[in-house]
Amino acid sequence: MQDCVFCKIVGGQIPAAALVETDEVISFLDIAPVNPGHCLVVPKRHVQSLLDLNENELVSCILTAQKLARSVMKATGCPGLNLLQNNDRCAGQLVPHAHFHVIPRSPGDGFSFGWRQGRYAEGEMDRLRQKILQAL
Amino acid sequence: MQDCVFCKIVGGQIPAAALVETDEVISFLDIAPVNPGHCLVVPKRHVQSLLDLNENELVSCILTAQKLARSVMKATGCPGLNLLQNNDRCAGQLVPHAHFHVIPRSPGDGFSFGWRQGRYAEGEMDRLRQKILQAL
Repeated sequence: MQDCVFCKIVGGQIPAAALVETDEVISFLDIAPVNPGHCLVVPKRHVQSLLDLNENELVSCILTAQKLARSVMKATGCPGLNLLQNNDRCAGQLVPHAHFHVIPRSPGDGFSFGWRQGRYAEGEMDRLRQKILQAL
Repeated sequence: MQDCVFCKIVGGQIPAAALVETDEVISFLDIAPVNPGHCLVVPKRHVQSLLDLNENELVSCILTAQKLARSVMKATGCPGLNLLQNNDRCAGQLVPHAHFHVIPRSPGDGFSFGWRQGRYAEGEMDRLRQKILQAL
């Protein structure tokens, strides 16, 4: 994809602080990190979302993310970590080329996901479960 | 683990709105969803974090998450999705048994990760890269 910043990093037209590379994926430090050590795992093939990744790519992404998680936590001394993968702009995906965020976390780092806990109305959860099972 | 709510769901002592199951993982609807259709993928074996998952478990988690992502998006009609995995309380992990969140998202759903974009000081990114590479 000609205008894709991640494709340009894969192709070497834009430099990046490269980390692990496999046949299917590259990884590098995010230049605008949530916390220092925040890195990205990116499939070499241009696909937009999690749903578009084939099995080899998906497995390579998650194994690379786990490997990086271990080394980033060691290197930064952070006791916590988020693995995050956003699909579609409404979910916070800024670059439309699928990627996984590996974000080291520590107490008092000032970052919060603003978690909320919703509730289902009577019967709603079971109806939704049936719809999901039918869509599998 | 006797006091672990996810181990109790795995063992059938606590009911859950079950979805996909494999040899390594179960999945079910989160009872306190960020958005309706929010589900969890949980390894059957009690481990605390992403780093503790063996390769079979990790691969089963991510393949199940992708499968669920597809069906949850179909069932809810949501165009977006977050895949999120939190490790340690400081990263938002509330149940100390490793799990992946699959969260359907749509424009105007009122949820936001409160993203922030940090900056590295001159030379800091390269020093950190070297430390991560040494820790691999």
